[in-house]
Amino acid sequence: MLYRDPAACVDDRVRDLLSRMTLREKVGQLNQRMYGWDAYRRTPDGGFELTDALYAETERFAGLGALYGLQRADAWSGVDHGDGPGARDGAALADLVQRHVVERSRLGIPALFVEEVPHGHMALDGTVLPVNLAVGATWDPQLYEAAAAHAAAELRARGGHVALVSALDIARDPRWGRTEECYAEDPYLAARLTEALVRGMQGAGDLFAADKAPVVLKHFAGQGATVGGRNSAESELGPRELHEIHLPAAHAGVRAGAAAVMAAYNEVDGLPCAGNRALLTGLLRERWGFDGLVVADGLAVDRLARVTGDTVSAGALALGSGVDLSLWDEGFTHLAEAVERGLVGEDVLDSAVARVLRLKFRLGLFEQHGTRTPFPPHGRDVSTALARAAVTLLHNDGGVLPVAAGVSRVAVLGPHSATCAHQSGDYTAPQRPGTGSSVLDGLRRLAPPGVDLRHARGCALTGDDLTGVPEAVAAAAASDLAVLVLGGSSARTPDTAFAANGAARTAVPEMTCGEGADLAGLRLGGAQHALLDAVTATGTPTVVVLVQGRPHAVPEAAERAAALLTAWYPGPWGGEAIAEVLLGRREPTGRLPVSVPRSAAQLPVHYNHKDTEYGSYVDDSAEPLYSFGHGLSYTSFRYGPPRLSGHTVEVDVTNTGARPGRTVAQLYVRRLVTPVWPRALELRAFRGVDLAAGESRTVAFSLGADQLAQVGADLETAVLPGTLEVRVAQSAREASSAVPAVLHVGGQSFTAPEETPR
Amino acid sequence: MLYRDPAACVDDRVRDLLSRMTLREKVGQLNQRMYGWDAYRRTPDGGFELTDALYAETERFAGLGALYGLQRADAWSGVDHGDGPGARDGAALADLVQRHVVERSRLGIPALFVEEVPHGHMALDGTVLPVNLAVGATWDPQLYEAAAAHAAAELRARGGHVALVSALDIARDPRWGRTEECYAEDPYLAARLTEALVRGMQGAGDLFAADKAPVVLKHFAGQGATVGGRNSAESELGPRELHEIHLPAAHAGVRAGAAAVMAAYNEVDGLPCAGNRALLTGLLRERWGFDGLVVADGLAVDRLARVTGDTVSAGALALGSGVDLSLWDEGFTHLAEAVERGLVGEDVLDSAVARVLRLKFRLGLFEQHGTRTPFPPHGRDVSTALARAAVTLLHNDGGVLPVAAGVSRVAVLGPHSATCAHQSGDYTAPQRPGTGSSVLDGLRRLAPPGVDLRHARGCALTGDDLTGVPEAVAAAAASDLAVLVLGGSSARTPDTAFAANGAARTAVPEMTCGEGADLAGLRLGGAQHALLDAVTATGTPTVVVLVQGRPHAVPEAAERAAALLTAWYPGPWGGEAIAEVLLGRREPTGRLPVSVPRSAAQLPVHYNHKDTEYGSYVDDSAEPLYSFGHGLSYTSFRYGPPRLSGHTVEVDVTNTGARPGRTVAQLYVRRLVTPVWPRALELRAFRGVDLAAGESRTVAFSLGADQLAQVGADLETAVLPGTLEVRVAQSAREASSAVPAVLHVGGQSFTAPEETPR
Repeated sequence: MLYRDPAACVDDRVRDLLSRMTLREKVGQLNQRMYGWDAYRRTPDGGFELTDALYAETERFAGLGALYGLQRADAWSGVDHGDGPGARDGAALADLVQRHVVERSRLGIPALFVEEVPHGHMALDGTVLPVNLAVGATWDPQLYEAAAAHAAAELRARGGHVALVSALDIARDPRWGRTEECYAEDPYLAARLTEALVRGMQGAGDLFAADKAPVVLKHFAGQGATVGGRNSAESELGPRELHEIHLPAAHAGVRAGAAAVMAAYNEVDGLPCAGNRALLTGLLRERWGFDGLVVADGLAVDRLARVTGDTVSAGALALGSGVDLSLWDEGFTHLAEAVERGLVGEDVLDSAVARVLRLKFRLGLFEQHGTRTPFPPHGRDVSTALARAAVTLLHNDGGVLPVAAGVSRVAVLGPHSATCAHQSGDYTAPQRPGTGSSVLDGLRRLAPPGVDLRHARGCALTGDDLTGVPEAVAAAAASDLAVLVLGGSSARTPDTAFAANGAARTAVPEMTCGEGADLAGLRLGGAQHALLDAVTATGTPTVVVLVQGRPHAVPEAAERAAALLTAWYPGPWGGEAIAEVLLGRREPTGRLPVSVPRSAAQLPVHYNHKDTEYGSYVDDSAEPLYSFGHGLSYTSFRYGPPRLSGHTVEVDVTNTGARPGRTVAQLYVRRLVTPVWPRALELRAFRGVDLAAGESRTVAFSLGADQLAQVGADLETAVLPGTLEVRVAQSAREASSAVPAVLHVGGQSFTAPEETPR
Repeated sequence: MLYRDPAACVDDRVRDLLSRMTLREKVGQLNQRMYGWDAYRRTPDGGFELTDALYAETERFAGLGALYGLQRADAWSGVDHGDGPGARDGAALADLVQRHVVERSRLGIPALFVEEVPHGHMALDGTVLPVNLAVGATWDPQLYEAAAAHAAAELRARGGHVALVSALDIARDPRWGRTEECYAEDPYLAARLTEALVRGMQGAGDLFAADKAPVVLKHFAGQGATVGGRNSAESELGPRELHEIHLPAAHAGVRAGAAAVMAAYNEVDGLPCAGNRALLTGLLRERWGFDGLVVADGLAVDRLARVTGDTVSAGALALGSGVDLSLWDEGFTHLAEAVERGLVGEDVLDSAVARVLRLKFRLGLFEQHGTRTPFPPHGRDVSTALARAAVTLLHNDGGVLPVAAGVSRVAVLGPHSATCAHQSGDYTAPQRPGTGSSVLDGLRRLAPPGVDLRHARGCALTGDDLTGVPEAVAAAAASDLAVLVLGGSSARTPDTAFAANGAARTAVPEMTCGEGADLAGLRLGGAQHALLDAVTATGTPTVVVLVQGRPHAVPEAAERAAALLTAWYPGPWGGEAIAEVLLGRREPTGRLPVSVPRSAAQLPVHYNHKDTEYGSYVDDSAEPLYSFGHGLSYTSFRYGPPRLSGHTVEVDVTNTGARPGRTVAQLYVRRLVTPVWPRALELRAFRGVDLAAGESRTVAFSLGADQLAQVGADLETAVLPGTLEVRVAQSAREASSAVPAVLHVGGQSFTAPEETPR
């Protein structure tokens, strides 16, 4: 049979196999109905055995299209070290399940094993990476590409296939608990990191190498702009805002070859993404040429019953709109009925099945279920490298950092200071005891001999308990320096993390961030503000470190602390990375991937707002506390004026301080005359530049379509005639007053915009 | 000449006149370039004389298309009682200017006098009405229609012609300083009031009666949804959101026959309204059949140079998009050049001129410049009737209101308590000394003999001065009841109200609301929160009255005050209207036209959010403090279950208390199955019902297109197949748990939404 011939081309194999399948078998390929952790249980001898639930599922459609979360370990799956598959035996479990699936399949079709890999594989022994927002702070796609490659290698080595990764959500409202899963508020920076993810995880070529994994980019589209930062709420955006801000990362991912995209839960302007044919087919497949898989978010298809009347027609709507593979829905299990009722054509169903099969062939699953590489060496170094690069110094009065030689007594305070339990964000598997390092751990290990480190927690991350504050104050008062580690938590505990129905994710008491944990006021939880006030009131210079999954609004820290830095959620070893920067063993190189607001009352706050009157409020500024792109070094840099020559702009950058350092040169475009109303600034290129003390270098940027193109009134992205400024600076705020180079593009033959609303 | 024949039909007269005009004369008809207050000055004998500025302007285009603000009196125009035209001599001034214009015009074409009439004519002696938000609180279109008729009669009696009225902005972000100019957050309630405005001001028929005035409905469109509540900032809305929320009032106004619409400053999703042909021509004229005038907002045409490159092409873009009449712009003065350069066709210009001329003929201006009726009796009663209807009781613990017979000592406190200087909102002309009544005035006049009223201001509306607080506390402590009148101010003072360039409107020190005075935190200004805390801490039952142009977030008042009410900005005589309600001489009948948020951090807060997961924030609820539609009475009402019969739904409503009262029966629709993602609730009918104590009445609502139609995926508004619930209740919050009547509409032949993004 042709489809079994590894030498035949993939498309021929798909066609051949498809032609042999029954309607029932086809429908089976489009479903990942059950939870992977329900497919197995531990045997007394420490092995695995399969469950009746899996038997029933493979029986239903004579095979299994895909299985979600076979190796998932977390509060929801209830999988912990006692019972879960780990680095050593995950592959054995995968093989056990796959053998069963192939046996039950008349044509021997293996299943896709789909896993959560948001910042490392969410499975026992999976290396936890910093969250995406920390990745955004690195402004370093190459570093991220290497980390993504590591995560893919771990996933494949234990038998997983497909990686679900939040890579498309843009951080437009810090109240949203999933802000931590976004790379940035900016479409350009996000797009470069999405590309790096795809390159790192997937590699090149049509067939996947044994250590490479197809990526499902999620969520498509506009989920970062739901109203009020409320999870899964509506998004009111117009199509141009969507194209300018929320779609570039997806487009970049598609161009980089992403194997799959996940349709988002939310609706955009009234149309739910999973039922939006214009979005999933018109734009994604037809206009962008995407030939991969479209996956629905969990139960998003069944929700469409609200617009169709029942789950059968909901499944038909989703399939007809462009969804290929469903997650948990009832609706997609009735596609045979939907075809028979004429709600959707069998040709549409065939196309979806072909896309699922194509991915299985590309993965080599029909060839002994795919080859396998050994589990790679632990990824701690990969994770720590990202964490180091993410540490961002926001202010540093009088150079209190790095900690000077004369400082001999340091108080290490705050709820985050001596634990790494809350450093890793949501979608993190349980870690083995002893994994990771807190800030206190890092300082203990790295501080010069003779430095006296005193610790007091002061208060918890949440709750009203102030009883620990005096001890922290006493420690600060008796020290030369206080390091106060505050922030949020996205950690879930098994007993209360999820509501009884399994599907609803709810916050646990200490959880102030993560999916379902949206925060109105953007203030730190518990008594942390009281602790901050009390510690800074001692007069001891205080360094505030924020460990967080979103920018909190803490203007007091900017005012009262001698220095302020954040590492977002830097991962298990983030405490050590922070300690390295505090002690000056590493330069702070992170830059803000989002604007830091003064308060929730001034939202939205983005550097790339439209260039309209953007005055102050009566009671506050409309400007952020810290600008997008901002981040200090222990040295200083001077940027010369931009020199324009043909399609290149050059800037001389000089390290004017006494230490080596890294500056991130950021190229912003400001459109003076342009057919669609312009933004104040648009980031369109950036480059990290390492410079020794006193060193000077010329940084050159090419000006091509990526720098100049814009979304026109007709929603086409193109280089349009106009006049624009190019500014190179160290942050968006600096760019707003930087010397520009002016560039004229094309003629002046503008015509009136001719689009929406009708 | 045909155009001079009053017996000829308007269209023939327009055609005839147009055929006789030069290009220069035509361009003149499309401009209102100068400020009206620069057209005249006072003579020593108390008359008026014309200025060189007016001579130059009428010379330039041999006539004058329109003149803005001839009678405007306020800080910007600098016109006060000393120099401005009033009720007695406004008409003489208008005649003086008109004679000059007609003389300078070869064809004897009179000018349109365009005036600000946002809540009464903004001219000396013009009756000030409550602001639109207070009008919204009345839920009484008939009462508003009468008030609008009065304002039109005043305008016309003194020679004004055209009324500029904010009637289209929807209150979607209370941070916006112009929230006071919106009727409601809800499109249905707003639409009914917009209709009432048009009916009241314009009357019926093509030709305007002598006491009727053409209305310019502003602003078109989406200005209520600019990001962050920032004035003139961008609006990111998609077309369906625009159609569902922001366009119904405009559509209703057009259907009611509105003579003109003003294109808004803001852009919507990248396209500035004044240059958006799809909006101004495609939607407004072609789809809605609007045949009136499109006016640009001040300098909005010149701003289009940002998308065209220069002001000449900006004018061409605006004209080509559908703007007929410009305000202050340079761009529209160069339309002859634009035509000659081929940037816009002369036929387009002719159409615009024809629309201007048509309005002049409809007003009868060619017939001795229009007839004139006498200045009507003062509108105090009209204004007070609206103010009374707007007073809204939000909570009333243990029935502290109305003030009981045994209460003999009342402390009247707070910065709003003894002055009516801040009761009237923005766009208010200076009032003659002695005009209006404060709450203290009202209580003094109406309180029963023997009641001892003590007054202390406590603090100012803004500033940090706490020195007056102890006096207020002492007064409260020594009283049986404290009435604490707090709030905001939109009052401008002449010296600092406007920046030197005239065009930029900036806030004055006490101004916390109004155009250009956006408020991030939604908290009361100055020491008002401290005053509230201190007064309520005395233990004396405290009634808090909020006089305001937006809902402030004052959850403390809800918690600590015995009663809370608001009258928005009720106008000069609002203090008396409030006193009547406090004393029980009138029932409180106002209902909230907007949701009252708990804090700015939970914005947006609307009852008609989409029906998505709308859970709590970790640190707060996502629900408002008080729901849209809420308002207590001094009695109570019971609503029976809805009975559906054919196209009618009936509800039995009973006054279950011991006093007469008025309930506003609100009919909400909740769509269960519907092609486009539904909102949680949609107000689709309402009726005020007066009931004696114990009285019962059946309220019947017809269910027609106004109740059932919705905006489809294709942006067409139609009754679409689906299933919906009809609920009748006293507020949106009550409706969310009210017994529904279920209605099936049409078949189940749903198809996939097929719209944006491409």
